[in-house]
Amino acid sequence: MSRFLPTAPYRGTRDFLPPEMSVRQQVLHRLYQVAESYGYLRYDGPILEPAEIYEAKSGQEIAELQLYTLTDRGGRRLALRPEMTPSVARMIAGHAGSLQFPVRWYCNVNCHRYERPQRGRVREHWQINVDIFGSDSPNADIEIFSVVHDMMAAVGATRDMYVLRANDRVLLESILTQIVGIPADRVRAVCDIIDRWEKAPRDQLRADAAGAGLSDVQFDRLEATLAAGEDTLAKLPPDVLDRSHLAKILRSDANDLVTFDPHIVRAFEYYTSTVFEVFDLDPANSRSLFGGGRYDDLVGLFSSQRIPGVGFAVGDVTLPDFLETHGLLPQPRSEADVAVIPVTGDLAGAARDVARQLRRAGWRTSVPVEVRRLGREIARADRAGVRAIVIIGPGEWAEGQVTVRNMTTGEQQLVAAASVTEAVALTIGKQAP
Amino acid sequence: MSRFLPTAPYRGTRDFLPPEMSVRQQVLHRLYQVAESYGYLRYDGPILEPAEIYEAKSGQEIAELQLYTLTDRGGRRLALRPEMTPSVARMIAGHAGSLQFPVRWYCNVNCHRYERPQRGRVREHWQINVDIFGSDSPNADIEIFSVVHDMMAAVGATRDMYVLRANDRVLLESILTQIVGIPADRVRAVCDIIDRWEKAPRDQLRADAAGAGLSDVQFDRLEATLAAGEDTLAKLPPDVLDRSHLAKILRSDANDLVTFDPHIVRAFEYYTSTVFEVFDLDPANSRSLFGGGRYDDLVGLFSSQRIPGVGFAVGDVTLPDFLETHGLLPQPRSEADVAVIPVTGDLAGAARDVARQLRRAGWRTSVPVEVRRLGREIARADRAGVRAIVIIGPGEWAEGQVTVRNMTTGEQQLVAAASVTEAVALTIGKQAP
Repeated sequence: MSRFLPTAPYRGTRDFLPPEMSVRQQVLHRLYQVAESYGYLRYDGPILEPAEIYEAKSGQEIAELQLYTLTDRGGRRLALRPEMTPSVARMIAGHAGSLQFPVRWYCNVNCHRYERPQRGRVREHWQINVDIFGSDSPNADIEIFSVVHDMMAAVGATRDMYVLRANDRVLLESILTQIVGIPADRVRAVCDIIDRWEKAPRDQLRADAAGAGLSDVQFDRLEATLAAGEDTLAKLPPDVLDRSHLAKILRSDANDLVTFDPHIVRAFEYYTSTVFEVFDLDPANSRSLFGGGRYDDLVGLFSSQRIPGVGFAVGDVTLPDFLETHGLLPQPRSEADVAVIPVTGDLAGAARDVARQLRRAGWRTSVPVEVRRLGREIARADRAGVRAIVIIGPGEWAEGQVTVRNMTTGEQQLVAAASVTEAVALTIGKQAP
Repeated sequence: MSRFLPTAPYRGTRDFLPPEMSVRQQVLHRLYQVAESYGYLRYDGPILEPAEIYEAKSGQEIAELQLYTLTDRGGRRLALRPEMTPSVARMIAGHAGSLQFPVRWYCNVNCHRYERPQRGRVREHWQINVDIFGSDSPNADIEIFSVVHDMMAAVGATRDMYVLRANDRVLLESILTQIVGIPADRVRAVCDIIDRWEKAPRDQLRADAAGAGLSDVQFDRLEATLAAGEDTLAKLPPDVLDRSHLAKILRSDANDLVTFDPHIVRAFEYYTSTVFEVFDLDPANSRSLFGGGRYDDLVGLFSSQRIPGVGFAVGDVTLPDFLETHGLLPQPRSEADVAVIPVTGDLAGAARDVARQLRRAGWRTSVPVEVRRLGREIARADRAGVRAIVIIGPGEWAEGQVTVRNMTTGEQQLVAAASVTEAVALTIGKQAP
């Protein structure tokens, strides 16, 4: 056995070294910008939550099998949050009296689930959550769809690369009970089967449906109805269409935002009307990139007040997979824009002074802390992606001069130390990025 | 008992609602900018770590009393990280072969410690960590001190508001053994007493020192030596001064960055040379704002390679307390710059189109999702801090016009819908922020 501790992160979690972190930050920043452009405000909350807020609503799979729990020294049973929705519902309920509804909030939080790590699945993942609380209007659902499309556009995706597939629990329930002819108490069991529709073989689904009490005729009708897509909606009664947020959107001028798809189910416990997911059209990535919907009862765990919500989460595992597949991942940022290199140890203070001027002008500027051969430092700066270097040599410095070199062209010139920021700006760009 | 779950966060943790989050993000952003201006790159890592990486180095208090631990379903003993240094040491050790040293990294991570919540102490806190790995040069320590001062300046602090107090383990050990006359095996016990020097009554310290084997004469000598501050250094042998990073800095042109203070001890297990803390000079805040030092052996837990490090952490509890005390907390950001308000429900799509134009021009723009009385929406926009509103009225819209109102002055004008972005820019500022 090695006398050293292992350097790998805990299974299913990830270290983000600067290159991956830079890519992640650039993607996140674009998503944040979109949320903020719509007036969403960022919030945050603790990772540890009382375990019971998940046991009440998150569904058995999460609560029993996937939750990381612990008991603190005071005997309090806690969980690492597996998702953000219960936390944000808790906050909204706790501050409902002082908030101006509708409230638009977003966050970027890490969530833990004990799962078998595989493509698109890890144990600790980060997700951006975007929600509107306090509106029953389909305009809120439309806005949420628009935010999704704007986020996809912001990371470089075009509409031919992905699809936003939406369903509605009100429609699905009516389809199952009124068209397929399933008793109300079997709806949930059949929804679980529909949720696996595109992953499981047809024979398996038929067997499961039989287990849930469906006749062969009913199964065939279910299959035909799911395949019919939007055409099914024409067969639903007007009062059902009027209670469905999605049906209203499909009949509005915003209907180009979504594709109706009766296969979309999502976690049964939360959603009350709209449900949706965004999928990569490239088969390399089968898991959804975004997922969300309308959950009109969730705040009800914490308060008697009824506060409807609609929103979504977008995760940091499937979206980067999508971006990679479509060649849209940004490049990692360089270490610095400029390196100021003192040729001898006694010029370290001079290098620090020059670097300070460059930083004030907005250039990210590094200074070597060791004194090494100039050629070696230049090579290091080059590998670090630095665009210009400023060389502080003893003779030149004594005469108030420094050398500025463009690392792309190799051109260099002697300039007055006092005008080094202007010289760098002229060499590598008019202004700091 | 209420049938509702409580809405308060778990004791010692915090919900960050948008106003607090906005203040926090603005402060963090300024700190990030400073780190990046020096060429530090951001990284991140998992919250869950194998428990043994803390038990090896973090000191008994943390490992035995303050660690949140859990065992996963595979029997793996895990801990919520109480600090970031072991994690970053793990990453550096694991990737040492492909990194270009010296490496400059920073992060912003949450850490958990089971403590009694009180002013300046919580159970979940966020901290920015800034470190250079791979350099023995005092230039690295100097750079770290410069980053601290630049961070303080970036949040609006001036040098008369705070002090950066630094010590050096090499100096402290020499002071204790060679000046005070304490045997080497008592150094650690005496360091623990010095660590409490400014918090405990003198009699208590004297009693503790007696318990550690110090005579009254030795205690008096210790007291006098600590009080003498920098004057003590003149009495130390040259070889000690040559081994101390801090002594070299105090004799350099960078000596204005720090105040030598032999009371600074910090966690005994980590640091090998420089140690420092930043304190508010206002007595309202007694806990340190920044803390750090040089830890030459930490990577050694994970690798046979010797990789020295120097760095610090700045937390999100004491720094905001400092900023509040000195009136330096930034204002929370408004919800949006512009609100586009449709007067009737059938103009919702028109409002969305106008908002889209404004967002493209860089304005954060919200659109009401409910149709309510115009006066009520205007009042809401005003409370949300919106600077301009665009009113979409049916008659004007039919003629291709909208009303733009400056919310500060109340002035409003009818403009062509096609030139709404220019009209907003003229009304509230030349360009989007």
